[in-house]
Amino acid sequence: MWVKLSPAEGTYNDGPGETGVKIAVLGTGNVGGALGRRWAQAGHDVFFGARDPNGAEARAVLDRAGERARVGTCADAIAAADVVLLAIPWDQTRAVLQAAGSLRGKILMDCINPLTSDLTGVTLGHTTSAAEQIAEWFPEARVVKAFNTLSAATMENPQYGDLHAHVFICGDDEEAKATVQQLAAALGFDPIECGPLKLARHLEPLAALYVYLAVFQGWGGDCAFRMLRR
Amino acid sequence: MWVKLSPAEGTYNDGPGETGVKIAVLGTGNVGGALGRRWAQAGHDVFFGARDPNGAEARAVLDRAGERARVGTCADAIAAADVVLLAIPWDQTRAVLQAAGSLRGKILMDCINPLTSDLTGVTLGHTTSAAEQIAEWFPEARVVKAFNTLSAATMENPQYGDLHAHVFICGDDEEAKATVQQLAAALGFDPIECGPLKLARHLEPLAALYVYLAVFQGWGGDCAFRMLRR
Repeated sequence: MWVKLSPAEGTYNDGPGETGVKIAVLGTGNVGGALGRRWAQAGHDVFFGARDPNGAEARAVLDRAGERARVGTCADAIAAADVVLLAIPWDQTRAVLQAAGSLRGKILMDCINPLTSDLTGVTLGHTTSAAEQIAEWFPEARVVKAFNTLSAATMENPQYGDLHAHVFICGDDEEAKATVQQLAAALGFDPIECGPLKLARHLEPLAALYVYLAVFQGWGGDCAFRMLRR
Repeated sequence: MWVKLSPAEGTYNDGPGETGVKIAVLGTGNVGGALGRRWAQAGHDVFFGARDPNGAEARAVLDRAGERARVGTCADAIAAADVVLLAIPWDQTRAVLQAAGSLRGKILMDCINPLTSDLTGVTLGHTTSAAEQIAEWFPEARVVKAFNTLSAATMENPQYGDLHAHVFICGDDEEAKATVQQLAAALGFDPIECGPLKLARHLEPLAALYVYLAVFQGWGGDCAFRMLRR
């Protein structure tokens, strides 16, 4: 278990926070666009992977991310990276990763939620999860579940008054989790260590709960889960 | 969708908060003991249902709850109540309710979590939940999922600085949910309307996540989930 960072301890802005991590961000939607831009601006080498690297969406994301960022195919982005953010639809995930060549040793940050088409449920769970399924398909990769319970608005800005949104993190590779924890803290999130990868069975339903509240109960994107303590 | 109460709106201590609700609290452990005592002290008629109404645990719970409370068999408690808190183990739930006679019109507040024996997972989920299973077994009852994501310490005291712990509530009967919302607010919780009963598929894994953090990650009972807003 790594040390929990908290804003009160002042570790966000002056912590060690590795820079220069080679990050592939697969997907140029709200999620990939927000996290990729912020990592690039925090000093990391971000390579966006896009279905159409010359399309308008990819170019717009690249423009916002600044000069440290690049864009190409998902396969090219993965080949150049040590850490890969999966911010693509669940039903494309296996094919995109299969097309990418070796994933040996690469850290896969999985923020995917396998939601039902009506957005109210998950299409798998309880005895498995998207994260565990990915780890089963690609055992040479180091899968970490993270960033899946957050709105795009919270990814842009994780601060809520004096409190910071949590990134719930689970995985079976301690070193990989520590890297993801640093990448989360570098963007101002308060990471929580949630145990082995099978805890993704609980984190994916948490995202479905979030989506329900945001979309169907009218909470919108400016809200985020936090564990209160005393 | 009922109006969300929040501490900032000052609705906790001076809200209407029906008193005199006839509540059966099934179970005299930490959960039933804490909520039953607090409802009794808030002016409700609490009837504890115990496996052994003359046992030491039942007597101790009754002593703490004060003179508005009673204790008897689960069947007697249910017969006398309009609202029933299920705070018994999941594997006893069906038999206890079957032994109770008619549940017609009664509100069942289900705070049960069908955890695996190692406490890291749920034994059913994703396409169903304990709450939905209870509703299927007893279609004449009005099942509301609530109070399942809280530690006993938070049930005793839901306040965390200026913030109050959430009670996540879902169910298919709007009037029943409104009653549960009032019973939660009366104890100082900040209730959240989470939609139809099938959302219990997400609330039960949230409890499993809570248990994992509390027990295996060392967070303990003095923590509670909250949705941050801005």
